[in-house]
Amino acid sequence: MNNYKITVMYDGTNYNGWQNQGNTENTIQNNLELAIQKNIKEKIEIIASGRTDKGVHSYGQVCNFKTKNKINKKMIKSINEELQNSIVIKNCEEVDERFHARYNVKEKTYKVKILNSEINNPVTRRYVYHIEDNLSINKMKEAVKLFIGEHDFVGFSSLKKAKKTTIRTITKIDIIEQKTEFGNEIEIIVTGDGFLYNQVRIMAGTLLDIGTSKLNTNIITEVFENKNRADAGHTIPPFCLYLDNVKY
Amino acid sequence: MNNYKITVMYDGTNYNGWQNQGNTENTIQNNLELAIQKNIKEKIEIIASGRTDKGVHSYGQVCNFKTKNKINKKMIKSINEELQNSIVIKNCEEVDERFHARYNVKEKTYKVKILNSEINNPVTRRYVYHIEDNLSINKMKEAVKLFIGEHDFVGFSSLKKAKKTTIRTITKIDIIEQKTEFGNEIEIIVTGDGFLYNQVRIMAGTLLDIGTSKLNTNIITEVFENKNRADAGHTIPPFCLYLDNVKY
Repeated sequence: MNNYKITVMYDGTNYNGWQNQGNTENTIQNNLELAIQKNIKEKIEIIASGRTDKGVHSYGQVCNFKTKNKINKKMIKSINEELQNSIVIKNCEEVDERFHARYNVKEKTYKVKILNSEINNPVTRRYVYHIEDNLSINKMKEAVKLFIGEHDFVGFSSLKKAKKTTIRTITKIDIIEQKTEFGNEIEIIVTGDGFLYNQVRIMAGTLLDIGTSKLNTNIITEVFENKNRADAGHTIPPFCLYLDNVKY
Repeated sequence: MNNYKITVMYDGTNYNGWQNQGNTENTIQNNLELAIQKNIKEKIEIIASGRTDKGVHSYGQVCNFKTKNKINKKMIKSINEELQNSIVIKNCEEVDERFHARYNVKEKTYKVKILNSEINNPVTRRYVYHIEDNLSINKMKEAVKLFIGEHDFVGFSSLKKAKKTTIRTITKIDIIEQKTEFGNEIEIIVTGDGFLYNQVRIMAGTLLDIGTSKLNTNIITEVFENKNRADAGHTIPPFCLYLDNVKY
């Protein structure tokens, strides 16, 4: 069997997430598997680096699948056309048969896109989170430092009961801003060795609540200690979240 | 009566254009009129700088309407919320009662957004025109010079029969490129005193056909002379076209 590693971009808007439990209809995984199968005439199973929630987008989801076939550039083009470019395989390479897209993950990077302005931009409203309140980027940049390193992130997750460890390491968070005619366009770029359920969305919501002075910066240290999700900030909507890349 | 000048942004994706002849359902004008009327409890009629086709977006459509009411910031906010930010009034000011958004236009600027890359970006696929073929920006920049000035643009329009003059003046065309992780992101920015039906879309299509070497640069001069639409380039899709601003 040949093992292929593929890097996949998608617009999550009209899909039910990467994979729904009990409901595989109209998921990204399902649509991608069907498009590949149609082209190679062989049943395959795609393993992703991890799930993304309903509405979340990707610039660099990484997956692998095994096949008896040889995948060529023409097939990839045909698969992308089949999916009408709402899901796009941007890279495909044959890898060692032991490569596993989930087990071998070393690091993941997510991007959060924000528009801070009085009025929203209609063209990006389904892809960028609009924050009307005055946002202090300086406060957010200060707060970010508290997230860096190894911490128990259970208070920054939507996990009901944690069976496994909830300790994760955040290696880097960048906050980039760009003034445009539409307002202040901000990206929060978070890299870590892994993330708990909704962790990036709650971390980003907490940073934004600090930026708008709804919360104090020390809330981050407090939630690490009391592990109480209710004390952390809001969960940002999925449509502004992008799985940017996965490192192995 | 008070006369208000409003600047309106919209995502044209889900609307039947600014105004459909014989079918005013789900047009931008109709939705905007209804939202304003609901807020001021008075029937109004919006006059725009001009129509935009089904699927075309706007960053700066300008309109005016007359009302007995005083429009305030709170009303604008409420109108934008009513329209769920798919249509957004970004500016509203009281103007002289003689101001007419269509008759008084001095200059209009349109933007065309293009992604030149091997594979498309799923997130922008509904807002940016994907060109896979190698595109020579230099050829396009050379060709642009031929469009500048006063010409008969009938061959670059979809007009069947022209009752009025088809002479228009193009004052400026900028081609801006930015290399990103997704490819070469290109904007064609066209300013003129007015445009014939589909003129910007056919001019842009002609420039792209020159950039991909499907047409020679001298086709522009030829079409000015023979007025034959069939000799010009293709009509670009509406979803990559943005009415950027209108000057009075």
